[in-house]
Amino acid sequence: MVFQRHLFRKVTILGTGLLGGSIGLALKKNGLAEKVVGMSRHEASARAAVAMGAIDIAETDLQKAIAGADLVILAAPVKVILENIRDIARHLRRDCIVTDVGSTKSFVVDAAQKHFPAHVLFVGSHPMAGSEKSGVAHASADLFKGASVIMTPTAKTNKLAKDKVKHLWTKLGAEVRIMDPVKHDEVMAFVSHLPHLAAFAMMRAIPDEFLPYGSTGLKDTTRVAASSSKMWGDICLSNYRNVLKSIDEMAKSLADLRKAILEHDEEALAEYLNQAKGRRESLDKK
Amino acid sequence: MVFQRHLFRKVTILGTGLLGGSIGLALKKNGLAEKVVGMSRHEASARAAVAMGAIDIAETDLQKAIAGADLVILAAPVKVILENIRDIARHLRRDCIVTDVGSTKSFVVDAAQKHFPAHVLFVGSHPMAGSEKSGVAHASADLFKGASVIMTPTAKTNKLAKDKVKHLWTKLGAEVRIMDPVKHDEVMAFVSHLPHLAAFAMMRAIPDEFLPYGSTGLKDTTRVAASSSKMWGDICLSNYRNVLKSIDEMAKSLADLRKAILEHDEEALAEYLNQAKGRRESLDKK
Repeated sequence: MVFQRHLFRKVTILGTGLLGGSIGLALKKNGLAEKVVGMSRHEASARAAVAMGAIDIAETDLQKAIAGADLVILAAPVKVILENIRDIARHLRRDCIVTDVGSTKSFVVDAAQKHFPAHVLFVGSHPMAGSEKSGVAHASADLFKGASVIMTPTAKTNKLAKDKVKHLWTKLGAEVRIMDPVKHDEVMAFVSHLPHLAAFAMMRAIPDEFLPYGSTGLKDTTRVAASSSKMWGDICLSNYRNVLKSIDEMAKSLADLRKAILEHDEEALAEYLNQAKGRRESLDKK
Repeated sequence: MVFQRHLFRKVTILGTGLLGGSIGLALKKNGLAEKVVGMSRHEASARAAVAMGAIDIAETDLQKAIAGADLVILAAPVKVILENIRDIARHLRRDCIVTDVGSTKSFVVDAAQKHFPAHVLFVGSHPMAGSEKSGVAHASADLFKGASVIMTPTAKTNKLAKDKVKHLWTKLGAEVRIMDPVKHDEVMAFVSHLPHLAAFAMMRAIPDEFLPYGSTGLKDTTRVAASSSKMWGDICLSNYRNVLKSIDEMAKSLADLRKAILEHDEEALAEYLNQAKGRRESLDKK
């Protein structure tokens, strides 16, 4: 019999939705945790996670869930992550590593630095995985394969915690990039939050009676508008300064386009569209 | 030996790009035309179409290309289609059927009614097929399988021409819908032109240095911004009233979103995102 040494003994996942459930499945598939405990505000979600084998135990008491854990993963929407940080801060064991999966990082990292005692080792993570589908029913052990995970350590981050969490994401198949949390939020407002918000906005701009004529162009560009509205409401508010900036840039860009069309300025229009096309093509060349 | 009766004897395709080339391939694959003649402003494109078997003959002289044709398909960008209509109007044989593949219909249908003599039987078509790829190299005989083709006959349209063109698209695997050309342009401005223009606009709103962090969300929502900028410039200008309206509605929708975020109005934000999500989900239920 082979003795299997686990990377973690007890992992607690707070929030057993698509991301939390997928982390659980991947931890177990890769033998990275001896025991995985999950907790959700929605009991049905935690029970489904047990049934799927994403977690070993569904706990309903927060203190019991995190007691003795050597890794806690905050996998709820950002607003709940912020509450979780306050609620668990004084109850974590010494040297417990904590990370999260929040789509915005400044508020989360600030809250962690403010509330966690020095013996709790926090490092922020943002796995750029998932889809417009939410809920543990869509969880998959392979969700992070080939995905990017942006980790946002700061000068105060414990090196061991950073290395161990990085190792964890790598084991789950992800490619880890390191970024400052403030920069992360600025960049994500444009490359992730804006595409989602523009998709939501477009679905409201189109008259209902025209929708049945939508084809692949419409469907592809707005697929992400089927994403969790709760999660995206959270993202908007937890990154509002940058999100407002990205919306303003989008509005300006549309105004430039409007002007070229209104004035029948073929040259300006061609330049506008060509530049956009070139940038889009560069995305696929990475 | 089976005698094969063709639907058309001589078909002339003006514009041998993605759509024209695909029509040629599909005509030949389905034995619908005895002879397919193609012409392109770009000689290389017509030569490539011959090499691919999309057309039998590449013609460089417009009058020769259309001489004796019983079906002419206008498959260039809208601006060129409008020129083609003027140029060929007096040289088409009696009862020649003419259709087009333009993405906007009012200007095309108006030009056809103005310039074609009574013995030329025009009916407008808009195959909602194609992709961000352009050029005959990407042509396929199956491009129209399962696609929608919107035909825009008017009170003046000859019934035989309408039926025969409808039969043609059906044979090519498409599902034909009938719409008034004015209504067509209004609907398309929202469900097709706006998604494309928003994608172009987004590619210009995002700072260059942030692009490398783009993930599937960004890539999916902006894939169509790699489309032909020439074609989209044409569409903007040939449907500018409706396109301006759709851009204005998008700007308004973004402004509503901005307001809810700025005011941290969680309720308004949730309602906004939920409604958008519901509409997007209804798209997949059709």
